[in-house]
Amino acid sequence: MTNEVQQLIAKADVLIEALPYLRTFANKTFVIKYGGQAMVSEELKKSVIMDIILLKYIGINPIVVHGGGPDITRMLERLGKESHFVNGLRVTDAEDIEVVEMVLTGKVNKQIVALINQYGGKAVGLSGKDANLLVAHRRAPEQLSGSEEQVDLGYVGEITKVNPEVIHTLSKQGYIPVISSIAVGLEGESLNINADHVAGEVAAALAAEKLILLTDVEGILAEANDPSSLISTLPKAQATSMIAEGKITRGMIPKVEACLIALAHEVNRTHIIDGRVPHSLLLEIFTDHGIGTMVTS
Amino acid sequence: MTNEVQQLIAKADVLIEALPYLRTFANKTFVIKYGGQAMVSEELKKSVIMDIILLKYIGINPIVVHGGGPDITRMLERLGKESHFVNGLRVTDAEDIEVVEMVLTGKVNKQIVALINQYGGKAVGLSGKDANLLVAHRRAPEQLSGSEEQVDLGYVGEITKVNPEVIHTLSKQGYIPVISSIAVGLEGESLNINADHVAGEVAAALAAEKLILLTDVEGILAEANDPSSLISTLPKAQATSMIAEGKITRGMIPKVEACLIALAHEVNRTHIIDGRVPHSLLLEIFTDHGIGTMVTS
Amino acid sequence: MTNEVQQLIAKADVLIEALPYLRTFANKTFVIKYGGQAMVSEELKKSVIMDIILLKYIGINPIVVHGGGPDITRMLERLGKESHFVNGLRVTDAEDIEVVEMVLTGKVNKQIVALINQYGGKAVGLSGKDANLLVAHRRAPEQLSGSEEQVDLGYVGEITKVNPEVIHTLSKQGYIPVISSIAVGLEGESLNINADHVAGEVAAALAAEKLILLTDVEGILAEANDPSSLISTLPKAQATSMIAEGKITRGMIPKVEACLIALAHEVNRTHIIDGRVPHSLLLEIFTDHGIGTMVTS
Amino acid sequence: MTNEVQQLIAKADVLIEALPYLRTFANKTFVIKYGGQAMVSEELKKSVIMDIILLKYIGINPIVVHGGGPDITRMLERLGKESHFVNGLRVTDAEDIEVVEMVLTGKVNKQIVALINQYGGKAVGLSGKDANLLVAHRRAPEQLSGSEEQVDLGYVGEITKVNPEVIHTLSKQGYIPVISSIAVGLEGESLNINADHVAGEVAAALAAEKLILLTDVEGILAEANDPSSLISTLPKAQATSMIAEGKITRGMIPKVEACLIALAHEVNRTHIIDGRVPHSLLLEIFTDHGIGTMVTS
Amino acid sequence: MTNEVQQLIAKADVLIEALPYLRTFANKTFVIKYGGQAMVSEELKKSVIMDIILLKYIGINPIVVHGGGPDITRMLERLGKESHFVNGLRVTDAEDIEVVEMVLTGKVNKQIVALINQYGGKAVGLSGKDANLLVAHRRAPEQLSGSEEQVDLGYVGEITKVNPEVIHTLSKQGYIPVISSIAVGLEGESLNINADHVAGEVAAALAAEKLILLTDVEGILAEANDPSSLISTLPKAQATSMIAEGKITRGMIPKVEACLIALAHEVNRTHIIDGRVPHSLLLEIFTDHGIGTMVTS
Amino acid sequence: MTNEVQQLIAKADVLIEALPYLRTFANKTFVIKYGGQAMVSEELKKSVIMDIILLKYIGINPIVVHGGGPDITRMLERLGKESHFVNGLRVTDAEDIEVVEMVLTGKVNKQIVALINQYGGKAVGLSGKDANLLVAHRRAPEQLSGSEEQVDLGYVGEITKVNPEVIHTLSKQGYIPVISSIAVGLEGESLNINADHVAGEVAAALAAEKLILLTDVEGILAEANDPSSLISTLPKAQATSMIAEGKITRGMIPKVEACLIALAHEVNRTHIIDGRVPHSLLLEIFTDHGIGTMVTS
Repeated sequence: MTNEVQQLIAKADVLIEALPYLRTFANKTFVIKYGGQAMVSEELKKSVIMDIILLKYIGINPIVVHGGGPDITRMLERLGKESHFVNGLRVTDAEDIEVVEMVLTGKVNKQIVALINQYGGKAVGLSGKDANLLVAHRRAPEQLSGSEEQVDLGYVGEITKVNPEVIHTLSKQGYIPVISSIAVGLEGESLNINADHVAGEVAAALAAEKLILLTDVEGILAEANDPSSLISTLPKAQATSMIAEGKITRGMIPKVEACLIALAHEVNRTHIIDGRVPHSLLLEIFTDHGIGTMVTS
Repeated sequence: MTNEVQQLIAKADVLIEALPYLRTFANKTFVIKYGGQAMVSEELKKSVIMDIILLKYIGINPIVVHGGGPDITRMLERLGKESHFVNGLRVTDAEDIEVVEMVLTGKVNKQIVALINQYGGKAVGLSGKDANLLVAHRRAPEQLSGSEEQVDLGYVGEITKVNPEVIHTLSKQGYIPVISSIAVGLEGESLNINADHVAGEVAAALAAEKLILLTDVEGILAEANDPSSLISTLPKAQATSMIAEGKITRGMIPKVEACLIALAHEVNRTHIIDGRVPHSLLLEIFTDHGIGTMVTS
Repeated sequence: MTNEVQQLIAKADVLIEALPYLRTFANKTFVIKYGGQAMVSEELKKSVIMDIILLKYIGINPIVVHGGGPDITRMLERLGKESHFVNGLRVTDAEDIEVVEMVLTGKVNKQIVALINQYGGKAVGLSGKDANLLVAHRRAPEQLSGSEEQVDLGYVGEITKVNPEVIHTLSKQGYIPVISSIAVGLEGESLNINADHVAGEVAAALAAEKLILLTDVEGILAEANDPSSLISTLPKAQATSMIAEGKITRGMIPKVEACLIALAHEVNRTHIIDGRVPHSLLLEIFTDHGIGTMVTS
Repeated sequence: MTNEVQQLIAKADVLIEALPYLRTFANKTFVIKYGGQAMVSEELKKSVIMDIILLKYIGINPIVVHGGGPDITRMLERLGKESHFVNGLRVTDAEDIEVVEMVLTGKVNKQIVALINQYGGKAVGLSGKDANLLVAHRRAPEQLSGSEEQVDLGYVGEITKVNPEVIHTLSKQGYIPVISSIAVGLEGESLNINADHVAGEVAAALAAEKLILLTDVEGILAEANDPSSLISTLPKAQATSMIAEGKITRGMIPKVEACLIALAHEVNRTHIIDGRVPHSLLLEIFTDHGIGTMVTS
Repeated sequence: MTNEVQQLIAKADVLIEALPYLRTFANKTFVIKYGGQAMVSEELKKSVIMDIILLKYIGINPIVVHGGGPDITRMLERLGKESHFVNGLRVTDAEDIEVVEMVLTGKVNKQIVALINQYGGKAVGLSGKDANLLVAHRRAPEQLSGSEEQVDLGYVGEITKVNPEVIHTLSKQGYIPVISSIAVGLEGESLNINADHVAGEVAAALAAEKLILLTDVEGILAEANDPSSLISTLPKAQATSMIAEGKITRGMIPKVEACLIALAHEVNRTHIIDGRVPHSLLLEIFTDHGIGTMVTS
Repeated sequence: MTNEVQQLIAKADVLIEALPYLRTFANKTFVIKYGGQAMVSEELKKSVIMDIILLKYIGINPIVVHGGGPDITRMLERLGKESHFVNGLRVTDAEDIEVVEMVLTGKVNKQIVALINQYGGKAVGLSGKDANLLVAHRRAPEQLSGSEEQVDLGYVGEITKVNPEVIHTLSKQGYIPVISSIAVGLEGESLNINADHVAGEVAAALAAEKLILLTDVEGILAEANDPSSLISTLPKAQATSMIAEGKITRGMIPKVEACLIALAHEVNRTHIIDGRVPHSLLLEIFTDHGIGTMVTS
């Protein structure tokens, strides 16, 4: 047997190793929050996109949710507008929301859609306005920490209802839905929603098998900045305490909240994984121990 | 019988008058190019949107196509970029096309979608990138009239293929598809397409019953600027001559071309109508003589 | 804008006004008891038939129930038989029931069916014998008022079971079922049933959205013969008292009883309306305040 | 083995003998013209009805067509009207057709329907008006034989179109359609049609497997009145000559014509059988040699 | 009427007599344990096979289960192996089970399948290994009666789970499933199962209407060897006592156990009938009093 | 990044490499002739079975065909019968065919079925008798080479008809059909068929995408015994000549014939591959150049 054939056999062995996972996850829905470095590096982009297409081909139902903070900030800058954040939330006036929506729905969303289609999948982009997919009301003003002042965040919303029918319609016909984090308000206005929260709410509404959030760290760390302190499995009660105690901070907070939203409904497993690792989606799905942190009920 | 009841009866008579048209058009597809004043005036917007929703409820299958030139020009201005046109086509460089796509797909499209949903329909927005709905290649450079100079139009395209499956998927489930005039190129790049042409190609691909283009004049006039010279029915041979002879000019040219594209396939009737008239869509559909100009094969 | 166009626009406005009702009633079932003047005047006949066809085209599911007392009486006269009534019920001997059935099922029913088909609907006539649609037993003898004498009504029945499957089969395929008020007895014999009661029972068995009974007065009047005393909304408790107190009399009694039967099941709304008003069906359905009397639970 | 058991076994053998016919005719459509003695004698009625129900249960699709001449004549007599026939066709004035229709559709049809339902089948009666099942125009006036005089037959028609969709709708749901020989004219009027012709046209429109006409003689006889001269198989060319030569006469003519109509379309086999023999339908279907006369192409 | 026709009519009467049973059993599932003389005599074989095919054609869903003891014993003999039985169960070593499986699944099963197909049915053979239809574990060792010694029966099993999906898949498509009494163990090994038990378990898993076991005696006798003491109806409590009291013995025990298994689930009726009587299946099904013994809950 | 993670990423890369093949072969049917060493070695058995299950999970439709010569010979030996071959075909008398069938259908087939089910697939075994899947007549007697003597092969057949409906029924429901090479003759008798031929005929009847035959050599060699002379692609004309010229010999002949049968119908690609290589099925399918010899049209 030639060397080449032996290498091929080794590859076939890898495919066979995937078989038990194929069985377990056949026809299940996975909601994937796509973001961070995996949306920047060309190599990682391709790796994530290929992973998503592979999932679809082997009978899993991937639903992609994305934000796009850096692109928004850049476009606002080009228009001479500065970005302000309060407690990590972008203060979004009427002029801003138009830009936020255009960038998320008209640029980032369509880039992801076109990439999936180019590599052989069939994607359709959706915003929360399409078929009233994401209905929201405006968030209450934020309390500035260490002050009594309240700041009106403007066109920033909280989801009150997900109408997932259009996702089912598209998924059943073989399409991969890609959802931008814009919701529709009661008067038809656009509202900016945290994309992690969108992913959590969509997973909950779909009773997804898994919610997977890509991030730019190894997962949740017991000791900040110490990758070796990665927590593999985090019960939701402990997750809640870690937020309260300030051990989970900043961008990780909405990710953990998304897991908690999903777990509060019928979602079985929620994962926060390191999107900087190539094929992190496949690694999470097709290995027993998984990667990153699994938040569990 | 009170006066009020007599008025109600008169209204019922109007509904009954619509019956033969309901019968004729049940389950037929109408492609509607939405644009011009009807996209600006709040009153006309509502009138068109309500007409479209009514069509859907009474068993007709409306498909909406739109452009959005004025919004594009405004956004480019805000970004300090001037708009150049050659033979009526926008010269679109790499920076421009990003803005064009964002405005059309991320702003105008979602405004229409949200309006339809607000007034009780169920709309889903699509760009030509979704499910590779509109595939295009770049247009050849334009010859400047009266010169040998050729101008490369940049990211301006011509449709080479329409993949209408996603339209069928959505329509069958009760959704009204709303399509922005952005196509996808062979390398996944965005291409700016004349929205009238998109409407014609989509109507052709769907073998629609009717293609209806909203414009800001009465229809095609035999004598420019003389509304009383409105041509009710224009055979396609004559339409072609009128373009050649310069009697059909400027923005009307792509509209007539759209009709010719549609007629060259299985589309039965094509209409160019005056979108400034309230309920012009219903008038066209629910009266025997129609309004505006019908281009016929 | 010409006068003609303005009139057209006014008509389109009427169509648009119907939109909210289209939305509310899409795919709902309406049982319509057709009778009285609306079955005599050529103009009213056409008006009712057109209304019914329109309902079908716009996605409502109309089911028509009819009687035909005057035609029966006429045919019996031609055969030299006198009609006797006890407490408003026709005494029906073996010879009579044959005539009653022939007239209702073989003449009146087919006239309605042919009219609907002629004006562009697709109707199929049914008697209660078809597919055992209406199963009945004979009514107990009637007590003569002010006497101890009891009169055997002969082949007059009360419905004991409705088998609505054949209605569903036909409705789903686009047909308008038209039902004559003949039921089948336990031994296969024909039984004459009050057509209002049939309508009420059919509405109950179908869990219809609405039961609408056409009559020849404005509705239920608080003061007999005073049209201005029309009761718009009549709670069922009050309806029951009004019958007991003799304020609802004669032909109105079975109509109110039909409403009570329907309300006792899952029917949402029941209406007794003035069939002498052209398009009374549309007026009832497509205006907020309705016409005639609504009996409510 | 007891005597009783041996008798049971003999019965089981009979069922098993039917097996090859069950296989051959599974899911096939049989159009049965019901008439003559088999519609008069209580015993024969039950026998035919049971045969029809059995056919339905074993997977054959029976469609029943009937006339009802004697009942019509009786009712016209009761109304003091005499019946006139020209060349075997009833002269039918405007008053007559109303009676004809009432008797056929309102009495005879519903009696057959009720009988089938009583014995355990599920029948639905139809006239040619239902769903425009039978569309006809008026027959040309008849030439009186041996005279130049022409007689206008009045409301007597010839079928121009069969719309069989409603038959399919009902058959598929397990119902046995029973069709009275009344057609609808172009203006919605009722037309009296020869029931044999109706059966032939319906069989043709359904591309039935078999057309079976019940009559009151053994079949077609080579020598009139000589039952031993029964023709088992009659090629259509010979049938045509026999009519021309006057060897087939009177009521047998429309029966043979019905066979010819059916054979001219996709009907495989047509049979004229003796309805006076109990279970003649089963005998025809479940024995190799059949009974009566088979007219063949 | 000729003698021949009168005989034919008598035959038709027999078919009509079957009608009420057709109605009662339409679309119901019957599990039939085929065995004994009816699997040996050519005449009885044909009679049973024809009965089964007839059931399928008239809308009943027959499922056939079989064993094949005599064939197994013969093949083992040819291979020089003696058969040992403990309490009526075959001691089955690793070499034996291979032979048992080959004979049951590769010979007896395919003979039945080929016979059904030859006589016009469409049969598909299954063993308990196909689609994991019958999952079993090994039986505990048997206690030798009158001794403390225990005998390991080897590859003899007891059913722990029936996966009936493949039966539904085949039945719905018109096939008659024929099941051999081999189950699959937890490690994929073959296990020999009593065929009566298999029939009982399959009937239970399918919630069959009837379980019918063919045997070589009249049924269950109150007095051994006295056919006139046949018990027509045996309540399950009494059946249990009769086993305990030794009044039901040997091969009849597993048959009665099969009935008890079936009755413990949703099976309505269980019958032990005399397979030596031709058409015993039809006799049981198509006569009111039935034959053999009915074990009832 | 740890070493372990890097290894995981390399594995994910392998999965991604499979993506284009998944796309190409989604929903396609592959007929796989399983035999030779791959049916003997425990390791190879598992490897082939896992490959087949994987194909099913990723949306390909594998159909397995098998023979079982060595097992047959062994069982005949145990029964004291010698095996004779003429031109490579087993002379099969009445006693032999019973054993052949039992071994193929009752032992080998069920072993494959049980293995697939054990490793997580859902297999159902079929012989050519099930649903008359393979209909055959007996082969003409074979001419002994170098002699005029003809030898009657007994129960050896040639396929005349494949009835593939039962394969479709099972495949659509997620089952993997496993087919033994026994056909049914016109009188219901069993006939022994070359399993390669069965695979070719089944592939032809299914219009399969691929026919893949596992063998115990590298493929077709230009020079006998010189693996380096492997022919990668062999046009069918050349294949025919090589047989005629004696360059393709013995067991390879029916394999090439199977390819020619398949190519003569709508099968796209036929492959003879080395079953001794682990995962040879996956290697063939998931690499561009394939392995073994492709016979092409």
